[in-house]
Amino acid sequence: MARVTPLSGFPEWLPDGRVVEQHVLDVLRRTFELHGFAGIETRAVEPLDQLLRKGETSKEVYVLRRLQEEGDDVAVGDGGARSEKQLGLHFDLTVPFARYVLENAGRLAFPFKRYQIQKVWRGERPQEGRFREFVQADIDVVGAGDLPYHYEVELPLVMAEALGALREVGLPPVRVLVNNRKVAEGFYRGLGLGDVEGVLRQIDKLDKIGVEKVAELLVAEQGATPEQAAACLDLAAIHGSDTTVVDDVRKLAARYDAGTDLLETGLAELGALIEAAGARAPGVVVADLKIARGLDYYTGSVYETVLVGHEQLGSICSGGRYDTLASDGKNTYPGVGLSVGVSRLVSRVLSAGLMTATRGVPTAVLVAVTDEDSRAASDAVAAALRSRGVPTDVAPTAAKFGKQIKVADRRGIPFVWFPGEEHQVKDIRSGEQVAVDPATWTPPAEDLHPRVVAGE
Amino acid sequence: MARVTPLSGFPEWLPDGRVVEQHVLDVLRRTFELHGFAGIETRAVEPLDQLLRKGETSKEVYVLRRLQEEGDDVAVGDGGARSEKQLGLHFDLTVPFARYVLENAGRLAFPFKRYQIQKVWRGERPQEGRFREFVQADIDVVGAGDLPYHYEVELPLVMAEALGALREVGLPPVRVLVNNRKVAEGFYRGLGLGDVEGVLRQIDKLDKIGVEKVAELLVAEQGATPEQAAACLDLAAIHGSDTTVVDDVRKLAARYDAGTDLLETGLAELGALIEAAGARAPGVVVADLKIARGLDYYTGSVYETVLVGHEQLGSICSGGRYDTLASDGKNTYPGVGLSVGVSRLVSRVLSAGLMTATRGVPTAVLVAVTDEDSRAASDAVAAALRSRGVPTDVAPTAAKFGKQIKVADRRGIPFVWFPGEEHQVKDIRSGEQVAVDPATWTPPAEDLHPRVVAGE
Repeated sequence: MARVTPLSGFPEWLPDGRVVEQHVLDVLRRTFELHGFAGIETRAVEPLDQLLRKGETSKEVYVLRRLQEEGDDVAVGDGGARSEKQLGLHFDLTVPFARYVLENAGRLAFPFKRYQIQKVWRGERPQEGRFREFVQADIDVVGAGDLPYHYEVELPLVMAEALGALREVGLPPVRVLVNNRKVAEGFYRGLGLGDVEGVLRQIDKLDKIGVEKVAELLVAEQGATPEQAAACLDLAAIHGSDTTVVDDVRKLAARYDAGTDLLETGLAELGALIEAAGARAPGVVVADLKIARGLDYYTGSVYETVLVGHEQLGSICSGGRYDTLASDGKNTYPGVGLSVGVSRLVSRVLSAGLMTATRGVPTAVLVAVTDEDSRAASDAVAAALRSRGVPTDVAPTAAKFGKQIKVADRRGIPFVWFPGEEHQVKDIRSGEQVAVDPATWTPPAEDLHPRVVAGE
Repeated sequence: MARVTPLSGFPEWLPDGRVVEQHVLDVLRRTFELHGFAGIETRAVEPLDQLLRKGETSKEVYVLRRLQEEGDDVAVGDGGARSEKQLGLHFDLTVPFARYVLENAGRLAFPFKRYQIQKVWRGERPQEGRFREFVQADIDVVGAGDLPYHYEVELPLVMAEALGALREVGLPPVRVLVNNRKVAEGFYRGLGLGDVEGVLRQIDKLDKIGVEKVAELLVAEQGATPEQAAACLDLAAIHGSDTTVVDDVRKLAARYDAGTDLLETGLAELGALIEAAGARAPGVVVADLKIARGLDYYTGSVYETVLVGHEQLGSICSGGRYDTLASDGKNTYPGVGLSVGVSRLVSRVLSAGLMTATRGVPTAVLVAVTDEDSRAASDAVAAALRSRGVPTDVAPTAAKFGKQIKVADRRGIPFVWFPGEEHQVKDIRSGEQVAVDPATWTPPAEDLHPRVVAGE
């Protein structure tokens, strides 16, 4: 094991980076639980045929093979028989959640609200913000048969609250961009464009290739007239954080005589979302009519989220409403959900120095050891501190006290305890040293655990 | 996705089972942090050649292949070039930790104490207590160049404390069985048996095939005389929770004239461990001279842990001391560590009903909705409760109140809140309903979060 090099696309953090990631995960979990989401965890593998149902990502799947079945490409499954299903690593948490819902439908209460924080894998070419292994934190609400619209309003607000709770430790503000598939589809159909997905696919290229190229493609590939293409681009240009957006779309539809019932339904939904968001999280949610997001399976609201000042990182939290999360032939399960790209977020936060940990160890106190024969006395002090919830370590060796202080200093441990007839504690940052009682002393609350603080 | 069947060997829990598992993980994490272990997480994959260094488990490895590289058995790696390394899923957390230490040696402070709670994968045939995907919770201390013996005493005690902290929620007591490789090796060499690993391999079969068959094998396979075989079996029969064990071994060695310096070193270490454990965790640690545990790479203390009353489940927490966790040619990193088989533990605890969750949702309060037009008023009550840390949900629909109470009842949510001129809260277990102030009311502390309690 002489040469060790990192694997591109498989991020790992040093202990102080992990403190930051763990804090992010703890804040997300706490917020999700405050909103009544139950935590679940699913296995990392799914049958390959289930993973390939979403055509788009099929090429990214990691397929598993048991080593003893070397050379046998078919038999990767339960027991190794050739008839067994091939397994792959999940590439998101939606496919496994849908399977979990079907598998346990009779034992779940609907609407079922769950959060899920796990790693996912995609065999993509690694690049900044794109990993082969990364952590996602998902919330979804799924109904049996139907799911009220109000969840489409609530879920992005839960995410805005969760990400907003990280602002005090240095996360930049987020902006949640919302759209509604019914608006786009209703408008395109009103215009006379039937290939809604085709049009959306072109609109999705706006950020990459610009307005003129998209206009050309709409004409060349979707058979739009120049006027229809212009209308689509006018719609995509509409954005704003209040309900004037709805009026703007209505005016545009009137100008092109493109009004439809579906458009009106979509506008009512989008308007309700913007209005509620404006009241509950002012300035966070913005309607952006060019957001497209895999609209082939989303059927209502769609969401993307950018870090203000880091927009080029792409969306850090995306999702939407789907009428058919899962179906078992008898029942259909509609849902709405969003997924935070935790690794993408944490990677940026660490590389840009936006958040730092006050230390990389949980330890608040290092108990010095006078000599190895009295190690038991130091252990006893440590046990007393731990019994009061103080993370405590004991010096590795009975070296000179100066060396033991260095052990604490290298790790960022703020206090060193010297046992003896009279116990003393030294704050190694200030140098202050005072006599203390092992039965009662605790460090100040702000030093008890490593904290995550905003970078410079 | 019409037919959904569970995959054997890939355990998943319903939400109330996950509450139990999460509690176990939270208690482990808290205990590890109290003892100064830093949390890290490593990627799920390692280069295949690294995974295969431990010969014994090589057949269990899951190898990864990117789907678009179908038919190309070699190229599973970074970018797909044929020269890239094949990757496999890690089968434990020790191999990845060793690699992490080498990769980051210059940026870690030694002795480095870390905990790591992650899934691992083994392509074994599934059976009770053996999974293909399972969660492990590991602690290790690793030194650069050397590592003091006292860590071999401390680490099993940390695990005993962590598992002991779960007794109040229904975990049976644990018994940590300890041995020391130097004792066995010193004794066998003193007897004149040179193939220490061979002897240990036979001794390891005691529980499966019994004393007589092992005696036969020691003679037939290891070339022992009947007297040497009897001596080995006498050693393996020694066990006890105080230092008389050390005396027993010394007497045995004198009887066979099998004393060696290595044996004395091992006995001193084992005695120190038993003594310290007797003082710090009375009755938990038992010396058991037949514990062998992959002694091909352990070099000092070895540990196994059984749940009292569930011994046939096998060890739920194992580990030991290894002089060479990792080596980069220049430096050697000795370590000592233990690993809790969390999935094995949780699976048993759930199937035997030893622990149950008071509810499967985090939600303490369900706010009823009088009619959809006043949903915002219910949302406001929920926001006020959440701001005080009360997990709160709002009813999915403005159904009749009786139906909304059923929504809470099905989920085990203890309180339903009725907003209005006068706000009221009903404890649906007792039926008691009282007028409350949304600005101040909180549920009793014991109802705030789901709790894990001992089963019947």
